[in-house]
Amino acid sequence: MQFIKDYIETHKDRFMNELFGLLRIPSISSLSENKPDMQRAAEYWRDAILAAGADKAEIFQTSGNPITYGEKIIDPSLPTVLVYAHMDVMPVDPIDLWKTPPFEPVIKDGKIWGRGADDDKGQGYMHAKAFELLLKSGKLPVNVKFMIEGEEEIGSPNMGAWCEQYKDMLKADIILVSDTSMIASDIPSITVGLRGLAYLEVEVTGPNRDLHSGLFGGAVANPINVLSKMIASLHNDQNQITIPGFYDDVQLVSKEEREAMAQAPFNLDNYKKALNIDTVWGEEGYTTIERTGIRPTLDVCGIWGGYTGEGAKTVLPSKAYAKISMRLVPNQDYRVISKLFEDHFKKIAPPYVQVKVTDLHGGQGYVAPIEMPAYKAAEKAYLQIYGKKPIPTRSGGSIPIISTFEQVLGTKTLLMGFGLESDAIHSPNENYPVDHFYRGIETICHFYLEYAKEMSKK
Amino acid sequence: MQFIKDYIETHKDRFMNELFGLLRIPSISSLSENKPDMQRAAEYWRDAILAAGADKAEIFQTSGNPITYGEKIIDPSLPTVLVYAHMDVMPVDPIDLWKTPPFEPVIKDGKIWGRGADDDKGQGYMHAKAFELLLKSGKLPVNVKFMIEGEEEIGSPNMGAWCEQYKDMLKADIILVSDTSMIASDIPSITVGLRGLAYLEVEVTGPNRDLHSGLFGGAVANPINVLSKMIASLHNDQNQITIPGFYDDVQLVSKEEREAMAQAPFNLDNYKKALNIDTVWGEEGYTTIERTGIRPTLDVCGIWGGYTGEGAKTVLPSKAYAKISMRLVPNQDYRVISKLFEDHFKKIAPPYVQVKVTDLHGGQGYVAPIEMPAYKAAEKAYLQIYGKKPIPTRSGGSIPIISTFEQVLGTKTLLMGFGLESDAIHSPNENYPVDHFYRGIETICHFYLEYAKEMSKK
Repeated sequence: MQFIKDYIETHKDRFMNELFGLLRIPSISSLSENKPDMQRAAEYWRDAILAAGADKAEIFQTSGNPITYGEKIIDPSLPTVLVYAHMDVMPVDPIDLWKTPPFEPVIKDGKIWGRGADDDKGQGYMHAKAFELLLKSGKLPVNVKFMIEGEEEIGSPNMGAWCEQYKDMLKADIILVSDTSMIASDIPSITVGLRGLAYLEVEVTGPNRDLHSGLFGGAVANPINVLSKMIASLHNDQNQITIPGFYDDVQLVSKEEREAMAQAPFNLDNYKKALNIDTVWGEEGYTTIERTGIRPTLDVCGIWGGYTGEGAKTVLPSKAYAKISMRLVPNQDYRVISKLFEDHFKKIAPPYVQVKVTDLHGGQGYVAPIEMPAYKAAEKAYLQIYGKKPIPTRSGGSIPIISTFEQVLGTKTLLMGFGLESDAIHSPNENYPVDHFYRGIETICHFYLEYAKEMSKK
Repeated sequence: MQFIKDYIETHKDRFMNELFGLLRIPSISSLSENKPDMQRAAEYWRDAILAAGADKAEIFQTSGNPITYGEKIIDPSLPTVLVYAHMDVMPVDPIDLWKTPPFEPVIKDGKIWGRGADDDKGQGYMHAKAFELLLKSGKLPVNVKFMIEGEEEIGSPNMGAWCEQYKDMLKADIILVSDTSMIASDIPSITVGLRGLAYLEVEVTGPNRDLHSGLFGGAVANPINVLSKMIASLHNDQNQITIPGFYDDVQLVSKEEREAMAQAPFNLDNYKKALNIDTVWGEEGYTTIERTGIRPTLDVCGIWGGYTGEGAKTVLPSKAYAKISMRLVPNQDYRVISKLFEDHFKKIAPPYVQVKVTDLHGGQGYVAPIEMPAYKAAEKAYLQIYGKKPIPTRSGGSIPIISTFEQVLGTKTLLMGFGLESDAIHSPNENYPVDHFYRGIETICHFYLEYAKEMSKK
């Protein structure tokens, strides 16, 4: 397929410049101050899809951030691929740990550096360019639709309703998404399982105002000490989660499947070295891969309370807060888990504090069958570019909207992720290897060609 | 003593205006940005002491904030009172909880509102005015020296060395301080015991960067969860502190003394109502008053880590922090306790994190004998103004410098505190009742007159 390589070679600088334009927009969906940037990002995507040759592209307003939709219908009788990506990014703090400004992308050491370089601007934009390449080369073998949303990082609160409303317009045979990672640059993999997510904020109130820790310390419960104790009690000595009923719906994975998973290349020493830790941690009886792939987990994503500034202030604070996320496995319902958490957290609150629990967001897990035509097409595409078949993996991450798509649109999703674990998504110094960007475009082009063949067999 | 009442009545508005001028200076010692304000506060005090009639007043620079010193030597053969106060104040966050701006003092509902209104500008400035009153009335019966420091709220790091250097200049028979509270507006009390303080900051590091909580959560130890567990383990089920050796040097208080303490008026229902809590908390086997008076305690004054902004960010943070203070009782050495804490905290750190402990500040506890002439003089002064003898109490708070004074200068301190528990020192909406300010001046004047009599008996 020399025409694919040639097209990329000819247009590679323009492709990168276009991506940089998108990366420069600080489209942080969780911060209200960045609201105007969401509109700019939506317009950037609309213009990109139109420039690539779509029949139409437009922006849909929601009660939250806008969604950009575009399509190219070659022939209504041909299969249709619906590409999903998100234009929004995570916040950038702690900002002082970034080596280069998060919204001023640069290329260094063979990588694109900047917030969204991987998640999901870098990965998403490959689809705009693969689409352009096939279309302008007169080789696009299927219909293509794009839906690019602006609230993925805050749990897609409006996407489900929007899909419901535009069900007909979004009709497709497969949803194609690049928002996950692969095992290594030379070991392609396809994510066939995603964890669900329940995310809550807790507020523990002790006395009605901040107190002098000398005059009251030891006689009035300190909400930070209490919150610490409550958090500590959420795991037992085997590092299992202690919320009653938490594991009730967990799909147990067979011995055979666990053995197959263990075949995926994984080097614990390298893993520890990359994170600079002496020891891993996790639920007893499971490997590191299993702990993030097939088991639910609970993490405190943020905690704050009392005096956190410079120097020493002696205070017994009135309130302490934590943001707590639980990653769920298939069959666990995030609404059930959120409720279990809330009930349990209130129940374990001692009488000297008051507890408030706020549900911030959630989503269901997802499993994709490896027998579907799209998976087989992807397998062939990767084989041609990487010289090897992709390994089906289960990711610890969550893309809650993927299970919503299945529920609302009745369409399965193929997760062709080209990210790497070292891309530092959600962290300072997010990056994405330059060659992953171009090889991703190439692989996606091959996917389209193979997918048309697979579908014609049916 | 009608001349005292008359003088206060004549000059009351000027007294208050002068105090307001001091309160308007944001002299927060723990924030480097307020450094220039410390100099302004020192100059304000210098000018106030001179205007009151001192022979001299000058500012001493230290490697930290300045100290203002002034003196009036009536006759070298007379007793000398050394007044100590501090010009610095606590930070003001959470700023949004203040009903009026912290550095724009106002009088409302019979109280002065603003940071430092009580601690220690309101209380400290009474001494400048009592001194002026007696001196200008030709009735000052003793020599008076003033030392006003600017680092009390950060543990007086330079005061000890300064006292050492100016030992001769600071020679006195008693140190007089108003920086504590009384039981109620109509129940005067004198603090005869202060707790010591050990204040440390801990940093718990897990992975070398913030991680995606989905991709790594459950497989890599989360430093917030770990820190919570470590903090939780610092108290046992009887709410005793679990650091080995922590209680070894605690001076046990006799049954008789505990019975005497129990005589102090204290209403647990009112206490709980004032703080809006259902239940008090504390070490088993001790009353609320004993828990802050005669027992050492441990409180987390601040905690932070991970994402603490708006909305939901799914992150497994690299680091978590806490500021931890321990209030100590007489005979516990803060250096010993800080070391015990550090050793223990490092020892309980699990292998999957690294722990750093930083000593932020500390000070020894203090006990004053009620047999000394100054205490007897104070007793008489209170009796004249309040119609009842003051109750000797032990405060849970710490003024670490008080024990340093005894060690370095060999001088005992009398703590004539006029604050109330409801003054919200160190908290938003700090306040100080207007009549406490004026009655405090009156009581201090009487103290001087009685003290001269007591000393002449010797």
